Amino acid sequence: MDARTYMQQVGRQAREASHATARASTAEKDTALLAMAAAIREHRGELLAANAADVAEARANGLDAAMTDRLTLTDKGVEAMALGLEQVAALPDPIGEITDMKRRPSGIQVGKMRVPLGVVGIIYEARPNVTADAAALCLKSGNAAILRGGKEALRCNQAIAACVRAGLVAAGLPETAVQVIETTDREAVGHLVAMPEYVDVIVPRGGKGLIERISKEARVPVIKHLDGNCHVYVDDAADPTKALNILENSKTQRLGTCNTAESLLIARSVAVSLAPTLCNMLIARGVEIRGCEETRKLVPQAVAASDEDYYAEYLAAIISVKVVADVGEAIAHINKYSSQHTDAIVTENYTNAMRFLREVDSASVMVNASTRFADGFEYGLGAEIGISTDKFHARGPVGLDGLTSQKWIVLGNGEVRS
Amino acid sequence: MDARTYMQQVGRQAREASHATARASTAEKDTALLAMAAAIREHRGELLAANAADVAEARANGLDAAMTDRLTLTDKGVEAMALGLEQVAALPDPIGEITDMKRRPSGIQVGKMRVPLGVVGIIYEARPNVTADAAALCLKSGNAAILRGGKEALRCNQAIAACVRAGLVAAGLPETAVQVIETTDREAVGHLVAMPEYVDVIVPRGGKGLIERISKEARVPVIKHLDGNCHVYVDDAADPTKALNILENSKTQRLGTCNTAESLLIARSVAVSLAPTLCNMLIARGVEIRGCEETRKLVPQAVAASDEDYYAEYLAAIISVKVVADVGEAIAHINKYSSQHTDAIVTENYTNAMRFLREVDSASVMVNASTRFADGFEYGLGAEIGISTDKFHARGPVGLDGLTSQKWIVLGNGEVRS
Repeated sequence: MDARTYMQQVGRQAREASHATARASTAEKDTALLAMAAAIREHRGELLAANAADVAEARANGLDAAMTDRLTLTDKGVEAMALGLEQVAALPDPIGEITDMKRRPSGIQVGKMRVPLGVVGIIYEARPNVTADAAALCLKSGNAAILRGGKEALRCNQAIAACVRAGLVAAGLPETAVQVIETTDREAVGHLVAMPEYVDVIVPRGGKGLIERISKEARVPVIKHLDGNCHVYVDDAADPTKALNILENSKTQRLGTCNTAESLLIARSVAVSLAPTLCNMLIARGVEIRGCEETRKLVPQAVAASDEDYYAEYLAAIISVKVVADVGEAIAHINKYSSQHTDAIVTENYTNAMRFLREVDSASVMVNASTRFADGFEYGLGAEIGISTDKFHARGPVGLDGLTSQKWIVLGNGEVRS
Repeated sequence: MDARTYMQQVGRQAREASHATARASTAEKDTALLAMAAAIREHRGELLAANAADVAEARANGLDAAMTDRLTLTDKGVEAMALGLEQVAALPDPIGEITDMKRRPSGIQVGKMRVPLGVVGIIYEARPNVTADAAALCLKSGNAAILRGGKEALRCNQAIAACVRAGLVAAGLPETAVQVIETTDREAVGHLVAMPEYVDVIVPRGGKGLIERISKEARVPVIKHLDGNCHVYVDDAADPTKALNILENSKTQRLGTCNTAESLLIARSVAVSLAPTLCNMLIARGVEIRGCEETRKLVPQAVAASDEDYYAEYLAAIISVKVVADVGEAIAHINKYSSQHTDAIVTENYTNAMRFLREVDSASVMVNASTRFADGFEYGLGAEIGISTDKFHARGPVGLDGLTSQKWIVLGNGEVRS
């Protein structure tokens, strides 16, 4: 079977199964998730053996160390997958929730009911645990799922898929509710993202290259997550201790995450007193400072920042620094250079805080808090499908609700329109 | 200037202006809307003259009577435009609204703030009043707008555009916040829907052909509205009087609207008693019945329905009728044949009502109410950008909120992530 025919068949089966997952009760979905967790624990040996074969082949093909590391599944990793499934089972079921009911002058009551999107396609790279994780999030939100993992992880993903199917069958749900693509044909992805009749949304989880390729080829909506070039702006009215703590945490708690600060802006009136303190703290933690001319006068160790530095997502021990006139220039700079992920102001001034919140056009905007808080779990979503840098549908950390829609419901008593 | 260069310039200007409209206060936006209304009243003579020239040219080019009718602007039409602008000014401003604030264990407070999408492209056909209407909705929701009207209405649309610009200038907003495309080059639309760097969403307002073309070519999200093949299902437990009233209103109040019922389903156990009453009422109102075999035994005037009839949006005095076993078969039929616009059940049975609400996969699902209620004004939205038959972002009647997004905001007091 060629890739197109195969993907059409997978799509048709997913669409069919999505009616059952949409109808499924909370108990059925949770039963399936708990049975998947049990199957994963039970088949731990097979999962590890399949993964070992994947890793061996990847090594033989010269896969780099970082990729091999992401590909490798350990005993602890198997247990984490099972626990993840159990945690999703414990989350409240978003489907069927009725909200915003209002009585209208005509007598009808109008409101909304939360419903699944239908079929979710998830495309990811080496990490095999995403297979269980994505299956759980799609099922709990009442969707059918088509999962396409990295070709390096094929054996392990198929072993996990067998556990997922066992869980679905145990709960009386169709085993096609979660399908893990069996072909490694690169063309399959192109077909998956271009079947609006069978797939309602695509969630790519991986590097920028993957996401850009998919966004370009997709003929269905994509929940996409591009760069995180996050800013901390230290305002004229900043509390110096808060500024120091927030900058330290935002930049140095973890260097490689998308909510790590990559740029520091300082208001001119406090630059003389604060720029050396803030920058010396970073330098002491091994961070290279790339600054504007004013910064370099105040911080001799700083090297000159180019315009590209202000656009950069370093994901490394480097930060760009710029002295700005005031909150207005900070907002303008952020709206030009930021990737609209997460930006924070440190200030005690109410008006500057409100203006920053309102005018910075990013998915998360913060006052006196570390950019590192931009995260589905920290926000209380219970789970995270990804972080959206789009404005349409879902923005910022996306929880189960991001895989749902709301339909209108009308409760009447025989009313007609006049 | 070629169409591409022109549209790029329009797009760049719109993106630039969108920063000002996003920042604009409620007072500034309302001042602009009221000044637009005043300018439209003041320039009534010019608008009517421009429209008369458009109509004369359209007639000379052989435009059909229905299109010419939609194109024609009257004294009353000018006043309706001005009133429409004033009504949008009177609506609550959605922008900046903070909701769902919750304190998290870390100490931060997390919630959402409503923000504009950015630049909205609206593509419409002959009716010139859409120019003022669309300008108002986009501006009130903090967006910049690019409007592309029908080529037949070019002179009148430009005259309205001058009034819109006058209103923007009166409020100190950039006159590029609303741009009405000056070229009639058909290629311009192709460029407009394929500039993700300048346009955030496209709203087509027009016939199915226009919407299908745009959906196919678009490289940005489209809020689209396709067919309305709406159902009324009369359940075993229906109240006969409610069934009669709801069916009459759903089918006959207006024949040509998208929320008009096009199909009647009747539960078998009540078909003998109700099918003749319901169908005779419709026949008395001039509606042709196209029924299944069982219907035809009970209603001799009914002609045979084909499978296509059950898919049809007639927009005419015709209805398809089918006898079904029960609520389960009704739901399955609707989910197969309906266009996912609006479907209603008539029942006194709680469990059947809840099952129908939950399982019918349409934008509006109703119990004991006329399908004709599916409308932004009836739902209390205050305005209607359109009705979405998509699930992503906005579904069903779309109000000002449909042109907005929500960003996350975090209010902290120096918290860092541990």
